[in-house]
Amino acid sequence: MICVVSAEPIILNGFTMNSVSHVNYGLWQHPEDQTYRYTDLDYWLELARILDEGRFDNLFIADALGLLDVHGGSAEASLRTGTQSPLGDPLLLVSALAAATRDLGFGITVSTSYEKPYLLARKFTTLDHVTRGRIAWNVVTSQLDSAARNLGLEVQYPHDERYDRADEFLEVAYKLWQGSWEDDAVLRDRGSADRPEGLYTDPSKVHGIGHRGHYYNVPGPHLSEPSPQRVPVIFQAGGSPRGQAFAARHAEVVFVAGADAAGIRRNVAGIKELAREAGRAPGAIRFISALAVVTGEDDQTAQAKLDDYLRYYSLEGAITHYSASTGIDFAGHSLDEPLRYQDTNANRSLLRMFDDPASGRRWTLREAFLPDGGFGRVKTLVGGPARIADDLDAWLAETDTDGINLIHIVNPGSFRDFAQHIVPELDRRGRLRERRAGALRSRLFGTDSPRVPPDHPAARFAFPATQTAEARS
Amino acid sequence: MICVVSAEPIILNGFTMNSVSHVNYGLWQHPEDQTYRYTDLDYWLELARILDEGRFDNLFIADALGLLDVHGGSAEASLRTGTQSPLGDPLLLVSALAAATRDLGFGITVSTSYEKPYLLARKFTTLDHVTRGRIAWNVVTSQLDSAARNLGLEVQYPHDERYDRADEFLEVAYKLWQGSWEDDAVLRDRGSADRPEGLYTDPSKVHGIGHRGHYYNVPGPHLSEPSPQRVPVIFQAGGSPRGQAFAARHAEVVFVAGADAAGIRRNVAGIKELAREAGRAPGAIRFISALAVVTGEDDQTAQAKLDDYLRYYSLEGAITHYSASTGIDFAGHSLDEPLRYQDTNANRSLLRMFDDPASGRRWTLREAFLPDGGFGRVKTLVGGPARIADDLDAWLAETDTDGINLIHIVNPGSFRDFAQHIVPELDRRGRLRERRAGALRSRLFGTDSPRVPPDHPAARFAFPATQTAEARS
Repeated sequence: MICVVSAEPIILNGFTMNSVSHVNYGLWQHPEDQTYRYTDLDYWLELARILDEGRFDNLFIADALGLLDVHGGSAEASLRTGTQSPLGDPLLLVSALAAATRDLGFGITVSTSYEKPYLLARKFTTLDHVTRGRIAWNVVTSQLDSAARNLGLEVQYPHDERYDRADEFLEVAYKLWQGSWEDDAVLRDRGSADRPEGLYTDPSKVHGIGHRGHYYNVPGPHLSEPSPQRVPVIFQAGGSPRGQAFAARHAEVVFVAGADAAGIRRNVAGIKELAREAGRAPGAIRFISALAVVTGEDDQTAQAKLDDYLRYYSLEGAITHYSASTGIDFAGHSLDEPLRYQDTNANRSLLRMFDDPASGRRWTLREAFLPDGGFGRVKTLVGGPARIADDLDAWLAETDTDGINLIHIVNPGSFRDFAQHIVPELDRRGRLRERRAGALRSRLFGTDSPRVPPDHPAARFAFPATQTAEARS
Repeated sequence: MICVVSAEPIILNGFTMNSVSHVNYGLWQHPEDQTYRYTDLDYWLELARILDEGRFDNLFIADALGLLDVHGGSAEASLRTGTQSPLGDPLLLVSALAAATRDLGFGITVSTSYEKPYLLARKFTTLDHVTRGRIAWNVVTSQLDSAARNLGLEVQYPHDERYDRADEFLEVAYKLWQGSWEDDAVLRDRGSADRPEGLYTDPSKVHGIGHRGHYYNVPGPHLSEPSPQRVPVIFQAGGSPRGQAFAARHAEVVFVAGADAAGIRRNVAGIKELAREAGRAPGAIRFISALAVVTGEDDQTAQAKLDDYLRYYSLEGAITHYSASTGIDFAGHSLDEPLRYQDTNANRSLLRMFDDPASGRRWTLREAFLPDGGFGRVKTLVGGPARIADDLDAWLAETDTDGINLIHIVNPGSFRDFAQHIVPELDRRGRLRERRAGALRSRLFGTDSPRVPPDHPAARFAFPATQTAEARS
């Protein structure tokens, strides 16, 4: 048993997609996997209940707006292997999952590139109402050209322009959520004998936002009345310099990926420094990293499970996903010959994993996408409860992160295993949050208020509490 | 007891909005009304269960994308009276309501003017999956300038251009729903000993739609796999000549409003004739009309209820809504002086109700918006079960319609009263559908197939059954 230095509760986040296969390439073929039922609402209700009862903080549903069609120049491999295709809308699942759960939060990916801020703001307000303050928004800007082509653009907006648009998009949304309806605007006053006309909303407390910007003009007030959190908890996963700056400014939870602890730690430190420069308080951002956990009664059982899972792993699915994310097409390459930089159309920095200048080692595609000892390129912990709890502590300390984004290898089996074997162990170690009803933001940050803190950029659009108090008198 | 000529089952549709007040102006102030809880998911679950167990066919949730701000030139009256403001997104409620019900369909208003067809098609496919084929789309083109201003347009697109866009929007959506994924594209084949790589989707059965049009370019395939109905049941409520032509071409259920039976009958006949000219079969369109029903154990109880309800009616709310729909601002006019055409900025045809050239009668605003004997301008039936069932038959016969879009005066009281008092009476008379699981389209049209019939414009984008059969062999 190692000495537990930090007793901060760990953020437990479940990670999936409204598709037959997310990052568990090929595993829909495993006899225990239920993800092939992803179009069936019962499948989702079962999953949400497992996470809610298993004391997860949040279910994170990723999304994309196009098929993965870089690998081999078509969506053929993606369709064949079921890699993130076909794909349903994630936002539309939330109300059903909210009705079936008590505490679980819902972090949903929505791109700023193809939505109108006026309408997306209403969507998140609606969901914050129906979840009673348990909604989070994973802000993305959409990277797929396959999405752009079908959504009215010949090619994607340039990368940095996407973030400029996203910055203004969030500013509009913040104004609508924070600066339009005062806290005491909605009175629901049914009237009385001396004033038979009731008063639902006091119109003097509802303000047009008067936004006239570079990309958006939104003069009017928000359509919806304030919800518990007003602003959904903002998730972000920016990896590029522009993305990191965006995350440092807006994000409350940052999702970092990779199996390299030192790399994650550098990434976290970089974003924390940028956040500090942007005037945000220490601890304003929680960091979670992608993690696979294979567990059971003991280490041996867990290892046997991983060996079994790997029989179903689709190397082609993994490469197809990576290709869509990076724009590098590996379709012409043998899986077992070392890859050279000049074989690809790629930016050199993307290829560090294959052609490591430090070690001089050259990797094959098979070695790169299915390294020994883990589930693909995802950091993987394998073992019984004590080992996982120890390894998890070590991983969080090495990466300087606050929690995990647990991927499923089989679904809901991976989540059920974690809830059954690891959660009681973490509970014994005092590493879990108390279950309590309340807003997701309060839960993640241990605050009483479900609203954004004063150092968040959305805070400056809020009505001052004094003004509201004066208006009340 | 009158002789029942037609034994066709009546379409029972419940009509509401994700807001504190829909067309029951002011009634949120009634002690029994629960609509003030519209931001609470439990309120919606209770409502959906009452309708589902009460043998309603469908819940129709209207929507708008702006505040009502024509009356007096601002949203002030709308906010004060709670008339369709504040307003939540209706589409996001559906999955929760689907999980809580068995047979009930869900017809949701979504405008074609501010959505991308590629993404809206995915939304309806997702909802058709999660409802198991119980979704309908009420296609609107958005009339409010207050929406346009906040959504990137200085003013609304011209009326007829909105319908031209909507025609192309539907064509794109039909291609995605019908002409992209063949029925046997998704195999979910987990592989076998001799072919260990499974096959989720057969890529040769997934086709890009190659749409290059005037308003939209969508080359790619649909993101989502086919759902039970493929195409949501298409609702429409076009009143203008261009809107009628649109409805005649696309609609499967047309919603007509008004208290004037002869006017509705003419409207229905006009759309039927246009549908015939567009090559659609007789009976291809079901017509429903807005109706208020005030009922109880007997006629006397019902009349007492109506008298009570009218004490809460907001004349200002009614005028505010009418003003937003027509663009006529009546704010400067006394409620009790006869209105003259030259007092307004309106198109003469809209004013027939106030300044009737046939009768020579002049109406005041109070008389026009709160005529004797009914609930505002909505056709209202008042009485015990036998009288309502008789009057309903007469109304359907006079208007040549197939069912009703029941508005609530108090919510869920009006629906509960209908389910408790009228549904058993209609059942005795053989006017209700058998309860059976299945797609909404099958239920409304008595067909085995949940797909659009061959005369619907979406049908021509479907893969021929023979081609699919050949491809299977």
